[in-house]
Amino acid sequence: MTMIGPENADQARLLRLLRDDGPRSRVELLDVLGLPRARFGAEVDRLAAQDLVETAGPAASRGGRRSSLLRIAGRVRFGAVAVGEGRLEVALTDGELTIINRYAEPVDVRLGPEAVVGRAVELLAKLQAEAGLARLTGVGVALPAPVAVREGNPVSSPALPGWHQFPVRGTIAAELGCPVQVDNDANVMALGEHHAGTGRAFDDFLYVKLGSAIGCGLVHGGALYRGASSGAGDVAHLQVSEDGPLCGCGQTGCLEAYCGNAALVRQAVTAARAGRSTALGDRLAESGTLTIDDVAAAATGGDPTAQTMVRAAARRLGQVLVSLVSFVNPAIVIIGGAPLGIRPVLLAEIRGVVYRRSTPLATDSMPIVLSDLDDRAALVGAARLISDQVFAAR
Amino acid sequence: MTMIGPENADQARLLRLLRDDGPRSRVELLDVLGLPRARFGAEVDRLAAQDLVETAGPAASRGGRRSSLLRIAGRVRFGAVAVGEGRLEVALTDGELTIINRYAEPVDVRLGPEAVVGRAVELLAKLQAEAGLARLTGVGVALPAPVAVREGNPVSSPALPGWHQFPVRGTIAAELGCPVQVDNDANVMALGEHHAGTGRAFDDFLYVKLGSAIGCGLVHGGALYRGASSGAGDVAHLQVSEDGPLCGCGQTGCLEAYCGNAALVRQAVTAARAGRSTALGDRLAESGTLTIDDVAAAATGGDPTAQTMVRAAARRLGQVLVSLVSFVNPAIVIIGGAPLGIRPVLLAEIRGVVYRRSTPLATDSMPIVLSDLDDRAALVGAARLISDQVFAAR
Repeated sequence: MTMIGPENADQARLLRLLRDDGPRSRVELLDVLGLPRARFGAEVDRLAAQDLVETAGPAASRGGRRSSLLRIAGRVRFGAVAVGEGRLEVALTDGELTIINRYAEPVDVRLGPEAVVGRAVELLAKLQAEAGLARLTGVGVALPAPVAVREGNPVSSPALPGWHQFPVRGTIAAELGCPVQVDNDANVMALGEHHAGTGRAFDDFLYVKLGSAIGCGLVHGGALYRGASSGAGDVAHLQVSEDGPLCGCGQTGCLEAYCGNAALVRQAVTAARAGRSTALGDRLAESGTLTIDDVAAAATGGDPTAQTMVRAAARRLGQVLVSLVSFVNPAIVIIGGAPLGIRPVLLAEIRGVVYRRSTPLATDSMPIVLSDLDDRAALVGAARLISDQVFAAR
Repeated sequence: MTMIGPENADQARLLRLLRDDGPRSRVELLDVLGLPRARFGAEVDRLAAQDLVETAGPAASRGGRRSSLLRIAGRVRFGAVAVGEGRLEVALTDGELTIINRYAEPVDVRLGPEAVVGRAVELLAKLQAEAGLARLTGVGVALPAPVAVREGNPVSSPALPGWHQFPVRGTIAAELGCPVQVDNDANVMALGEHHAGTGRAFDDFLYVKLGSAIGCGLVHGGALYRGASSGAGDVAHLQVSEDGPLCGCGQTGCLEAYCGNAALVRQAVTAARAGRSTALGDRLAESGTLTIDDVAAAATGGDPTAQTMVRAAARRLGQVLVSLVSFVNPAIVIIGGAPLGIRPVLLAEIRGVVYRRSTPLATDSMPIVLSDLDDRAALVGAARLISDQVFAAR
């Protein structure tokens, strides 16, 4: 495959600036980069020759000679894949990581990686063909499992049975002939928040992803904190209580066994059967099963049993967050992935626990907020993941 | 005060190389730095003119013309201060952070920061005078409290009552006329481990400091992870159990209330009074009080009650470490600060809990070891702390 990308650190910086801030005038870029004028012009020419940047028209006049605007070239298109919560989402973004087109469909990850990754490749190829592209600039992938990032393979996870060590990166790269990067979904969503969400204003924050699988992404100094073997951020299976419920991982009392979607649904079914909630009982009788959306609807509708369940889960999560926040000292905590209806209750309860219990230096002025881009976080983050690689100096 | 230090990134790199690896030949340094020969010579000359590097004699011949050895100049001398565990320790190190001379004496931190910092300044001045120095190159300080690192002030901590916001950095800098840097002791000890201990071989590790106050230092990518407001690593007051013992901080069930020295001593006194331990009872009758060393001696001597206490504390610590290790994914965990006698029991118990419970990606090949430089960690780390600042490009 033909590798494109910056040839040196200045070109890389220029590309990332244009990706993150959009079109800017040559005069302004010259200022920011602090390069000699001739050198700057030469670097721009070399990026243009690779079809990585292009002129976007004249900039607003600053009095003197008009400067032209530069932007990431229209030829730069990233593919983004997000697997999780029973859905496969695939998108095409431009060089500023704005989603141009996307497909989403139900997926059963238990069908195995060949089937799911194969389908993702089909959808990527479709997006590529529809956009009339000879090749994608790169593809980023978010998986609901720990990922050995260097290899691009997921490792054993209850959320992805049968995916252990499957070469996700290698498979997609071979099929589409472009660079591919794979990471854990919470990490990817944290990157998405950093590019386009509340996290944009912060270089040190903790992103907590709720849902079927619970995870954390830590951004430190503007980059993902991945740890020694890209296993950082794993919180799903922290033991909240020694004699807690059995978790999908085989241990007991894990955070996910209290706060994951499956745990809430299981509690809801028990409550419905025991006649402790009319709302949940009616819904169960009606459809024969309950989902997390039913629990959220019941809580939103004022059902006390559903609200108590959500509050209890939030308190458990809050307890874990107290530890993490004390240890990590983020500037802000962003919470994403929870069903719409239960967010206010969840947030109030989490804030209560964290602010009551945490040490002052860690939480004095630390906001806890809900994500404002939720269902785009994983796709924008996946594009950011691969763009960080493509826009790095060779 | 006259500021000395590197004028650019290459000079800074050269100084850190010589600090970390000791004297090296010019030829070798030229290779490592990858500078043009003339430029390299000019940078060395400018560092020599500032009395920061000097020639140490001829290097071993590699066949051609003999190259001379460079080293950090003898004029570079760092002061190191460590406050904690009832002791004030003050040392003088050379430019490679080797301790040349040191003083230690009992200290009561409740006398307040003026008295303790004043005494530290006296001892630093004494070390400076004995070494015939006009001025120290810089001073690093380790305090058993969270520290607002930018300002160099400790913030409220049960371990340092009355020290809140006292200008430790400003006071020492004004008295001695040199740059000063202050940080939390666990952070400083982690730096010490990275310079001279087991941590030398790792760029991502977790250092856990036991003792009167419990703390953590996280090294990530070779640098301290400090968080958004230098509060990272705070684990002492994580709630291990909701209905646990009262802690010095006013909350209940904190890790320190289970595993801190004071907690172990309190349990030992109770056991001695209740006649549950002959060893501890005899010792209490003899001296009217018990210390952590008495507990350690009883445990080492095979006293089952003392051993059970230490094991229980270690299991609590292990539980917290499981969370941290899953979240942080370090390459190795280094444990320091525990009294000599109880270390083997402690380590065995911690390993048991962590390896049984942690997720595979985080702990597959992650060793848990005892610090091998313990009582030097804080002083070497304090010298490293200030040298990182002095040896940074202006």
